[in-house]
Amino acid sequence: MRFTSEQRLDDGVLEREFTLGEIPGLLWTPASASASAPAPLILLGHPPLGLRKMYPRLVARARHSVADGFATATIELPGSGDRPRWPAAEQARADLRRAMEAGEPVSDEIVDALVLPLVDKAVPEWQAALDALLSLPEIGGPVGYSGGVISIGTRLAVVEPRIAAAVLFAGSFVPRAMFEEARQVTVPLHVLLQWDDEGNDRQTALDLFDAFGSREKTLHANMGGHTGVPQFAADSAARFFTRHLK
Amino acid sequence: MRFTSEQRLDDGVLEREFTLGEIPGLLWTPASASASAPAPLILLGHPPLGLRKMYPRLVARARHSVADGFATATIELPGSGDRPRWPAAEQARADLRRAMEAGEPVSDEIVDALVLPLVDKAVPEWQAALDALLSLPEIGGPVGYSGGVISIGTRLAVVEPRIAAAVLFAGSFVPRAMFEEARQVTVPLHVLLQWDDEGNDRQTALDLFDAFGSREKTLHANMGGHTGVPQFAADSAARFFTRHLK
Repeated sequence: MRFTSEQRLDDGVLEREFTLGEIPGLLWTPASASASAPAPLILLGHPPLGLRKMYPRLVARARHSVADGFATATIELPGSGDRPRWPAAEQARADLRRAMEAGEPVSDEIVDALVLPLVDKAVPEWQAALDALLSLPEIGGPVGYSGGVISIGTRLAVVEPRIAAAVLFAGSFVPRAMFEEARQVTVPLHVLLQWDDEGNDRQTALDLFDAFGSREKTLHANMGGHTGVPQFAADSAARFFTRHLK
Repeated sequence: MRFTSEQRLDDGVLEREFTLGEIPGLLWTPASASASAPAPLILLGHPPLGLRKMYPRLVARARHSVADGFATATIELPGSGDRPRWPAAEQARADLRRAMEAGEPVSDEIVDALVLPLVDKAVPEWQAALDALLSLPEIGGPVGYSGGVISIGTRLAVVEPRIAAAVLFAGSFVPRAMFEEARQVTVPLHVLLQWDDEGNDRQTALDLFDAFGSREKTLHANMGGHTGVPQFAADSAARFFTRHLK
């Protein structure tokens, strides 16, 4: 992990860009974090649109987490931003566009091709990022995952024992195979659903929520489209992390 | 409205029993409430099991609301506690018991007979209670309704303009006619659903949530049975009232 730039945001948050091998990432830490008072960590999940495009929304979420006393980090997803594409993903994206433009249902094959390789590639990268981040003296555990892609968060919650709680955003296609993995999740979950999310199937989201094996799981459904999560819902998710990670 | 007894609970909450005509009720007020600083009001809804039986749960909810600065009141439902039964309701209850013991689905006719007359009778009584409570110098607006029976809360939110926000507990049978009324609700709603509520149909609850006309409505679904609402979910509902009524 190599830090490539550093700036202090106006509210005292330290923002650092880093690279982890070929993977760019961002780390935000509270001024109060130090080797003697290491901060718990939240990993910020996001859709595969590129960190640069997502930056305004990510930094807003990070400021909120840092204000609550969490170190907060994210990495570029495979195939996003300046990272190399791979042909099968490009093909899946083209198939998805074609199906949606034709008003056809999105087939299981397209969803699998779109999401499963992304999950397979992204999860080990998040784990590598976790290794690197937890080796910093100012960051300690426990660790939470927050956001989308919900299949990435689900897999990570199953395979990575350092994830102690997760806020999952139900706003992306879910391969059928993920339902089996969802049953294996046991950490406390807080699932956010936008009731009128134009690109997301509500019933699939409800079925996935039902499938999660966690004894403590909460669904917060709110009005509005994909990007319209109300501030009070974000505040509520933040309280979930404070309850479980501090 | 006639106060019949009064006691100060150990945490400084003033609890008063009252009667409103033939209807018994309970009022809890914060020590800070006065004519110069009247408290907003929360009406505590509850299932038709009788105030005496419900008292431990009601007083726990009331203490929470009063600690948040709300006056909090409830009244006995028609046909509950010591209030006179009416034959059609007794018949509907017997039909319900028979259907459930036989493992049969509960028909629309039974649900209608069970719930609609209760709503018709209870809502004007809540409105009369509201008149009386708001005439007390230490109570002001705005007013929230909190709890079940969800059909009573729904009707009250439609016909009573003094209700500014409602926390509705999706844990009781819903007559089909209530879906039309739900569409006419416009106040902010916070709907609580126990995902594994043994006596409640989850899909009906989700459909009713979908039907509510309110622009701001939030569904909080949690694990556990009918009476297992977790403390953090109650805290979240309390914050909803603080956000909308203070």
